[in-house]
Amino acid sequence: MRIIIVGFGNLGRGICRAFIGKADFFKKAYGLIPKVVAVADECGAAVDENGLDLPRLLKTAESHGTVAKYPGGRRGKLALDLIEEVSADLVFELTPTNIKTGEPGLTHIKRAMQSGKHVITSNKGPLVVAFKELDSMARKQGVEFRYSASVGGAVPVIGLAKKLLCGNEILEIRGVLNGTTNYILSRMSAEGVPQEMIIQEAQELGLAEKDPTLDIDGIDTACKITILANSVLGIDAKLSDVKVTGIRRVTPDATRLAQEAGQTIKLVGTARRDLLEVSPKLVPQGHPLAVSGTLNAVTFKLDLAGEISITGFGAGPKETSSSLLGDLIDVHRTLGG
Amino acid sequence: MRIIIVGFGNLGRGICRAFIGKADFFKKAYGLIPKVVAVADECGAAVDENGLDLPRLLKTAESHGTVAKYPGGRRGKLALDLIEEVSADLVFELTPTNIKTGEPGLTHIKRAMQSGKHVITSNKGPLVVAFKELDSMARKQGVEFRYSASVGGAVPVIGLAKKLLCGNEILEIRGVLNGTTNYILSRMSAEGVPQEMIIQEAQELGLAEKDPTLDIDGIDTACKITILANSVLGIDAKLSDVKVTGIRRVTPDATRLAQEAGQTIKLVGTARRDLLEVSPKLVPQGHPLAVSGTLNAVTFKLDLAGEISITGFGAGPKETSSSLLGDLIDVHRTLGG
Repeated sequence: MRIIIVGFGNLGRGICRAFIGKADFFKKAYGLIPKVVAVADECGAAVDENGLDLPRLLKTAESHGTVAKYPGGRRGKLALDLIEEVSADLVFELTPTNIKTGEPGLTHIKRAMQSGKHVITSNKGPLVVAFKELDSMARKQGVEFRYSASVGGAVPVIGLAKKLLCGNEILEIRGVLNGTTNYILSRMSAEGVPQEMIIQEAQELGLAEKDPTLDIDGIDTACKITILANSVLGIDAKLSDVKVTGIRRVTPDATRLAQEAGQTIKLVGTARRDLLEVSPKLVPQGHPLAVSGTLNAVTFKLDLAGEISITGFGAGPKETSSSLLGDLIDVHRTLGG
Repeated sequence: MRIIIVGFGNLGRGICRAFIGKADFFKKAYGLIPKVVAVADECGAAVDENGLDLPRLLKTAESHGTVAKYPGGRRGKLALDLIEEVSADLVFELTPTNIKTGEPGLTHIKRAMQSGKHVITSNKGPLVVAFKELDSMARKQGVEFRYSASVGGAVPVIGLAKKLLCGNEILEIRGVLNGTTNYILSRMSAEGVPQEMIIQEAQELGLAEKDPTLDIDGIDTACKITILANSVLGIDAKLSDVKVTGIRRVTPDATRLAQEAGQTIKLVGTARRDLLEVSPKLVPQGHPLAVSGTLNAVTFKLDLAGEISITGFGAGPKETSSSLLGDLIDVHRTLGG
């Protein structure tokens, strides 16, 4: 399968590492031979119709901060050129999330679909801004469109709902979907220190963004709830439909009181037909949602199965590549591979 | 889709109830119109090429203990006659498990495949006795073969591994897969009473079989580990390859000591390339495998995603029908529905 990767940060590099390390596995288990024919990052692009030399590509990106220095590479904003001009089956759209405009991912995805290419993305922006439009466009163009990595990192939340729980009506989805806030709340609860201190430390450890507003104020979780509402519940929801309260007002005292009562405070996103909400909630200790650290967890309430919960790592390039590669194999199988 | 149901206990009836209550949902969501054209139980059979009247069928089975009393129904062991003679697309094989011979399920499944019918089963017997043979036969005959309900009840353990975690190599599967033993261990731990007392109570509540040996001695869990080894890890394993220790020697004292150390004792099944085992194990409180009551839980150890865990109800006719119906929709989709 001929692949274009747009956005070459941790995730794009994570996939290439998996392509290198697991080439035999993909070929033997699925008859899948991924060939990366073009990569664009913010500064430039590398193209080889016969397949890029991935170890060399990774080395170039790590030494120079851009793939433009790969032999024959070019400087400039070249993503759209690659998407439209390079012959390929599938585009991985892995640029950073912009929840206001969805760009540049939104245009990348549309152009890829319009040029008949399948799309796999981790980018929440385009999904939050234009889910329905992209979903319709994929159908109309007859291309596959997957976005498992946009919710839950390595945890296959969307696939579980759409592929495995499909005999059920999904009555409610509740999730701990933001690793940064969960790490902060877990440490507040364990150590009783104020969140500002922990945020600062988390930033130093690379566990929180320089501007952690999107996490702390619940916006990141609200994006994921919007995506789940659209993709799993079939609701045409916008980000502004989600009632959002972040964790800023959660104090160490509150976490201690919760703990004494056998509970724990989690930032929980909820999606039901009549409610889209993100808010700190008490969760009983021992409940599947009471995960600690940077773990993610989701509980589905179902008409037949009762409650089904899934937990795992919500972030990390290697972990999240599990979801991206799961999507790739799914597309490969759907196409009869 | 034209369906034959063989075995009409709680599970068969549970599916029919779902077909009645969720007919609109299946039609609207998946374009699936299930038509039950024949049902066989231990005493007889009911057949209607135009589709049985399911409310009437359920009422008959509940009043008379057999579907033979349905209008036009017949007495006798008629399962094989139905499987071979009635025109249908798919057979649900839901007879009781026999782990020695796999019968009568094994012959039912083979004949169904040989007559070109897809098969969905919850029956561990045929899978434990002849997994490889059945898997090969399904391929050779070009029919679909699904058995999600045989492991984990409502928890889609096999589907998660095969459909969603497929980018990963599965390094280890660990599972709490027997609700009866988990109920007994949970109550021993909470109340400090001997297991004989709890077993007696569980039998009175219908949570344990009259002969609980298969559960208590770990054989049921070993069957599930055998099925996971074959279906998910691709190992040609037999039940006798699993090293099994049950819970008989777990004392209330042991559960108390575990609890004091922040642990809990669970009957854990483990499947790796180099080890198939069932044994009581210490599991840290708060770990996803530390589920209580009749819940089931499975943790996959994966090369990319790290650990992914899933929990839910491991038994119950309504809950388990979630897995059987998930398989049905999956077959329907695979056939292009």
